[in-house]
Amino acid sequence: MGYFHLMFPEVKEKGMAAIPRLVALTSEHSHFSVKKGAAALGIGTDSVILIRCDERGKMIPSDLERRIIEAKQKGFVPFLVSATAGTTVYGAFDPLLAIADICKKYKIWMHVDAAWGGGLLMSRKHKWKLNGVERANSVTWNPHKMMGVPLQCSALLVREEGLMQSCNQMHASYLFQQDKHYDLSYDTGDKALQCGRHVDVFKLWLMWRAKGTTGFEAQIDKCLELAEYLYNKIKNREGYEMVFDGKPQHTNVCFWYVPPSLRSMEDNEERMNRLIKVAPVIKARMMEYGTTMVSYQPLGDKVNFFRMVISNPAATHQDIDFLIEEIERLGQDL
Amino acid sequence: MGYFHLMFPEVKEKGMAAIPRLVALTSEHSHFSVKKGAAALGIGTDSVILIRCDERGKMIPSDLERRIIEAKQKGFVPFLVSATAGTTVYGAFDPLLAIADICKKYKIWMHVDAAWGGGLLMSRKHKWKLNGVERANSVTWNPHKMMGVPLQCSALLVREEGLMQSCNQMHASYLFQQDKHYDLSYDTGDKALQCGRHVDVFKLWLMWRAKGTTGFEAQIDKCLELAEYLYNKIKNREGYEMVFDGKPQHTNVCFWYVPPSLRSMEDNEERMNRLIKVAPVIKARMMEYGTTMVSYQPLGDKVNFFRMVISNPAATHQDIDFLIEEIERLGQDL
Repeated sequence: MGYFHLMFPEVKEKGMAAIPRLVALTSEHSHFSVKKGAAALGIGTDSVILIRCDERGKMIPSDLERRIIEAKQKGFVPFLVSATAGTTVYGAFDPLLAIADICKKYKIWMHVDAAWGGGLLMSRKHKWKLNGVERANSVTWNPHKMMGVPLQCSALLVREEGLMQSCNQMHASYLFQQDKHYDLSYDTGDKALQCGRHVDVFKLWLMWRAKGTTGFEAQIDKCLELAEYLYNKIKNREGYEMVFDGKPQHTNVCFWYVPPSLRSMEDNEERMNRLIKVAPVIKARMMEYGTTMVSYQPLGDKVNFFRMVISNPAATHQDIDFLIEEIERLGQDL
Repeated sequence: MGYFHLMFPEVKEKGMAAIPRLVALTSEHSHFSVKKGAAALGIGTDSVILIRCDERGKMIPSDLERRIIEAKQKGFVPFLVSATAGTTVYGAFDPLLAIADICKKYKIWMHVDAAWGGGLLMSRKHKWKLNGVERANSVTWNPHKMMGVPLQCSALLVREEGLMQSCNQMHASYLFQQDKHYDLSYDTGDKALQCGRHVDVFKLWLMWRAKGTTGFEAQIDKCLELAEYLYNKIKNREGYEMVFDGKPQHTNVCFWYVPPSLRSMEDNEERMNRLIKVAPVIKARMMEYGTTMVSYQPLGDKVNFFRMVISNPAATHQDIDFLIEEIERLGQDL
């Protein structure tokens, strides 16, 4: 988000007070880092407009356009749309082509948060889910998520050459000497926000050399296949309810485990109040037994549900079978 | 610098436009990250006031107070003083006690950038140089610099309990569940600016366990002793000129190497224009031969000079002797 400095170069010297009434737009399912960035960069979280999603967690383009027009009518300046390729909870891919058209029409910076979903670009089978990412002005991609690179390894890709430098350089001549006797373009210090830092990308480079693109592809295809295997096993299984219909687009499989005592209950408030407590107890038991660990969370009006995410290429079908049995073993008395 | 959110909580939601005319003060020798922070956080680099330093690179408290009064008279709001304990180039320690008095008097947040100098707190012999740091509201300390922890390991210490959380939390209930079955105070995710990140402090913890405080002390005392050894060897040696008088306070030894051809020249512009080029050529030759590497930089009206910094506890007196001979070998024909 810091790269809106390109659109508003005066911010670097004058601060955000120089351009009041900026607003950023992102989906209600996007990562909280969009709001966090707005707070940290002096834009303010009130200036982040949340766009509605469909039942699969994808941003609704018509709602995006409506909110842009509405903001402009109120005198605000929509400057950034942060679309998501692989949301944290549902693993949803926003419709990037439609969003790109809207960004172009209203001259708004298009950012794609592909931190989680970017790895799918390695897969010939799955990369269509990111169609339109090539039209973004900037893209976040975390190889430490789906690609299995050890924490942390996070890339920000921007289209314009020289952008990172113009945004970040402070002309600290005592550190970034211009009279060195070698090619200065290799000096990255003045192009990044941080000064001294670990060369995280080296980890990715080593893995890429070792596995190749086809190695990464096989690993990613396998994780997605395992997620589909899990989905197929539980979608009609007694005691399971899916949070959204249809096959997951990423490896996020979102479901409730409903213990036997709740299965015959009516779908009323009492049932909901009991269901809220199921996932936290099962997770606590998972940690106690040390056998497995699956995240849970509420989202909007959906109470605590499990979100199984598969990003470890060493996972097997047997692991998925075990997981299902383990959830049932730990939760059947609840 | 982001922790001024405590003083101005409305920034988190409303952005920097809510509190215009803020100014931060730091010395002209401070690290460029102060300006970079001001740019990134939407304060703007124009809002950073640079305070004059004495000939040793220490902030002059009377100039600080003068500039605070001046800023207030112009209607600005001085909110932060960033003092430095161990400047990048000279290794200078700002007079923290005097600065603390001024910050208290004008109710200004006192930050100490002890990224480089903080390690001296491990040494009974040298820790007096940071006297007053205990009065700071916040302190930066990079164990990856003077302590020898592998990049990166950087700590921000704040006095108020709960401050990091109130500044950073975004109440992302889908990640930071409040109904977990264990002590939530161990959850650091919602207290930091970053989300997923490497546990860098573990490297420091391991080293501290292995070396103990006395081990770190011995290592730091040794580096400072080696710097003094270098200083004593070159301060009166032919062909060397010190950039500032007196023993360095940290391990930064700043000097010019003056080749024989320049030694009899008058101190005029021609000599300066030739001296500018000496350090870059010697450094290029150092890199070519692969024998050693010493940074150089200009600073204010001082043209390119070497800054030898010792932070590697494996360095020896023989290494220092070699360094001096090598500089002379590589630079005598210039």
